[in-house]
Amino acid sequence: MPTSPLDSVIALAKRRGFVFPTGEIYGGTRSAWDYGPLGVELKENIKRQWWKFMVQSRDNVVGLDSAVILPRQVWEASGHVEVFNDPMVESLATNKRYRADHLLEAYEAKHGHPPVNGLADVRDPDTGNVGQWSEVKKFSGMLKTTLGVLEDESGMAYLRPETAQGIFVDFATVLNTSRQKPPFGIAQVGKAFRNEITPGNFIFRTREFEQMEMEYFVQPGTDEEAHQYWIDQSWEWFIGLGINPENIRQFEHPQEKLSHYSKRTVDIEYRFQFPGSQWGELMGVANRTDFDLKTHSEASGTDLSYFDQTSNERWIPYVIEPSFGLTRALMAFLVDSYHEDEAPNSKGGVDKRTVLKLDPRIAPVKAAVLPLSRNEALSPLARKVAQDLRQSWNVDFDDAGAIGRRYRRQDEIGTPFAITVDFESLEDNAVTVRERDSMAQERVSLDRLQAYLAERLIGA
Amino acid sequence: MPTSPLDSVIALAKRRGFVFPTGEIYGGTRSAWDYGPLGVELKENIKRQWWKFMVQSRDNVVGLDSAVILPRQVWEASGHVEVFNDPMVESLATNKRYRADHLLEAYEAKHGHPPVNGLADVRDPDTGNVGQWSEVKKFSGMLKTTLGVLEDESGMAYLRPETAQGIFVDFATVLNTSRQKPPFGIAQVGKAFRNEITPGNFIFRTREFEQMEMEYFVQPGTDEEAHQYWIDQSWEWFIGLGINPENIRQFEHPQEKLSHYSKRTVDIEYRFQFPGSQWGELMGVANRTDFDLKTHSEASGTDLSYFDQTSNERWIPYVIEPSFGLTRALMAFLVDSYHEDEAPNSKGGVDKRTVLKLDPRIAPVKAAVLPLSRNEALSPLARKVAQDLRQSWNVDFDDAGAIGRRYRRQDEIGTPFAITVDFESLEDNAVTVRERDSMAQERVSLDRLQAYLAERLIGA
Repeated sequence: MPTSPLDSVIALAKRRGFVFPTGEIYGGTRSAWDYGPLGVELKENIKRQWWKFMVQSRDNVVGLDSAVILPRQVWEASGHVEVFNDPMVESLATNKRYRADHLLEAYEAKHGHPPVNGLADVRDPDTGNVGQWSEVKKFSGMLKTTLGVLEDESGMAYLRPETAQGIFVDFATVLNTSRQKPPFGIAQVGKAFRNEITPGNFIFRTREFEQMEMEYFVQPGTDEEAHQYWIDQSWEWFIGLGINPENIRQFEHPQEKLSHYSKRTVDIEYRFQFPGSQWGELMGVANRTDFDLKTHSEASGTDLSYFDQTSNERWIPYVIEPSFGLTRALMAFLVDSYHEDEAPNSKGGVDKRTVLKLDPRIAPVKAAVLPLSRNEALSPLARKVAQDLRQSWNVDFDDAGAIGRRYRRQDEIGTPFAITVDFESLEDNAVTVRERDSMAQERVSLDRLQAYLAERLIGA
Repeated sequence: MPTSPLDSVIALAKRRGFVFPTGEIYGGTRSAWDYGPLGVELKENIKRQWWKFMVQSRDNVVGLDSAVILPRQVWEASGHVEVFNDPMVESLATNKRYRADHLLEAYEAKHGHPPVNGLADVRDPDTGNVGQWSEVKKFSGMLKTTLGVLEDESGMAYLRPETAQGIFVDFATVLNTSRQKPPFGIAQVGKAFRNEITPGNFIFRTREFEQMEMEYFVQPGTDEEAHQYWIDQSWEWFIGLGINPENIRQFEHPQEKLSHYSKRTVDIEYRFQFPGSQWGELMGVANRTDFDLKTHSEASGTDLSYFDQTSNERWIPYVIEPSFGLTRALMAFLVDSYHEDEAPNSKGGVDKRTVLKLDPRIAPVKAAVLPLSRNEALSPLARKVAQDLRQSWNVDFDDAGAIGRRYRRQDEIGTPFAITVDFESLEDNAVTVRERDSMAQERVSLDRLQAYLAERLIGA
């Protein structure tokens, strides 16, 4: 029995092929999840909306797609090789390994205070006994590989744990070829890899995931204002795509816990209602100062400063970084849009229905064409309607089963419009369009159908 | 001095920030290339057109996004661990390593026949001497990494050298959740990684690259017809997006050189005019038979057959695989669209111009708004025009320099429309739209501008 919205979403995601574990037929990897036909459309739509909001609609943000595997020097300079470590601890009873900080946080969330004696007070999740822990040791979150054909260490490289460093390394090239000048931003969407000690909570913590990051380069002194601007913009993006403001909040990182590069960091968290913790990080906006450009400048010997012709000054830009987890955003959109309500059935009563009230711009399927029955007269017209609409949008065709059941199938994947082709359609050249949330129905002539949907799917 | 269209394109790509070497400030990796502001838009547009053509416009092809890192068992079953090797040879003079088969092919391309004594006849590219070669040895093209926290080999995994295997492994889940049945296809776009011995020819051969693959599952016996269908469709896709048919050709793999899984493979090649070889592979369509589903079925113990209810038969589908190199396609679109011609200048003469005659659907920038001069009266209107159009398309704004020079800048990145805002615009509320290829100009009222462009950018 599903007990939380999250459980219901995970069950739906699996049942309808949105998201399922990688390599399941080989027992799964626990490291990653695959996105099925609906999941990949949803994910691409989120990506596209982010790109429109962050890049396309602005004259001072440009895009980039840099490589996943970067040479060792990049990660040495960035500080990742030295400090990108998690505290790992091993249960002496089961030999399972855990993130020590996560164990402590879970204790605090449960008891309302940190454990007085540290890990010695924390129970083993498997055995229920306290204090059976090894020494805490540092564990690198970087995934290594080797490029090239030599058998020495010269080809040793790391898979990026964040897309950001590729942006810093390319800063000068983009600056010189794009006619941009600070304040301006470089955005990137792509895979990142972290060797998480304890992947879990569905697609929340995985070893392979996708980020949407933007590095915004500004003159030192204007950084705090720009930081606040991007916190507000990031918030707006979620609200604008339909996230209920009551389900997100901002979390200000305490000064003493900031990352080594950060002057201030504010996260946006979503109320995922995980077992043991209500909230989870969706994204963060960090003021990275001039840390990254300065360290790469020194390590590479390439000057990454900017000469400001208006003031005749040379400075290293400060960087404001809104960093979104794409797959976490997808999870939040699923959880937030998940509703159970009632729909009228053919017997004059009501049925329960599950509906994803996704913003039409991110819904994986924009419209479903449903011939009233599987019939030689209706099917060709219905197929033609579907085929015409496919030139513009992702459109489903479904002629299997009772119409009510087909509505339910579309509701639970969030399809905004269901288009019914009935016997009258053959006479009046019109169809019935049902809107997902209100379930209101409207008769629309086929001549007008494309325009009718286009008006309601603006930006999709 | 550029000597071939390819050299000109590489110079342009670098100058305008389409594509540049990864990690350049650290001396580069030779393994990969980064896509700058224009490159990432072009690449995304190609991807989107492929997805529209292959997935969205068809009722029997669905999408997937599976993980990059797959467990070792997947690659053992697929045969990659055993046979995904290249023949490597080392120069005894320089200790540089080469692909033995590439050296032999280059010899044959130059002399019109294979070397009589094999490698013993082949000159070292650096020293010019013949016969200074080590024994040929097998070199695995798979990139390894380790997932998880245990210090043994249990976490050993491979970065995928092709996106296809993720599709086979997920076949049953997609079949069960998508209401598809053979013939149907599963498509995927994503990164793949191969530890190439000799990366080279710009973005043609890199260690990190992107593929667009579709696995089309059919009843055995219908496979040959489906194979031909997808060869024809793949050809149509390139032609439909503007590739000159004289610059592509089909290459039928000789029976004795087919991959271990293939019954027949046909490539589409592009006339890249590489030094030493005219043609390079853009994509291939393979008839993979039931090799993949059968081997994964056996290795995983999961039944990957299909029960055909109409004939009451159970069979393992045959697979037809159109496999496109995304980054190679991008390179072909750049080379094919590259033209040098003449444009009228302000003195009544003509200037040379470079123009990328890209299909408007894939052009990175759809329109550029150019105020006639940098002026307090013109700039606000021009900026407003640009900002309005940005709601729909990627739009540039440029007010720097002479108007002819700004036209040249847009021509060489393939922008289909240049929109000039002049002093008359302040009176007649209209602008001049110049079409890239014909250079024809038309006065368009601002009320009509959005619709004017929309008609000419259908599908963009």
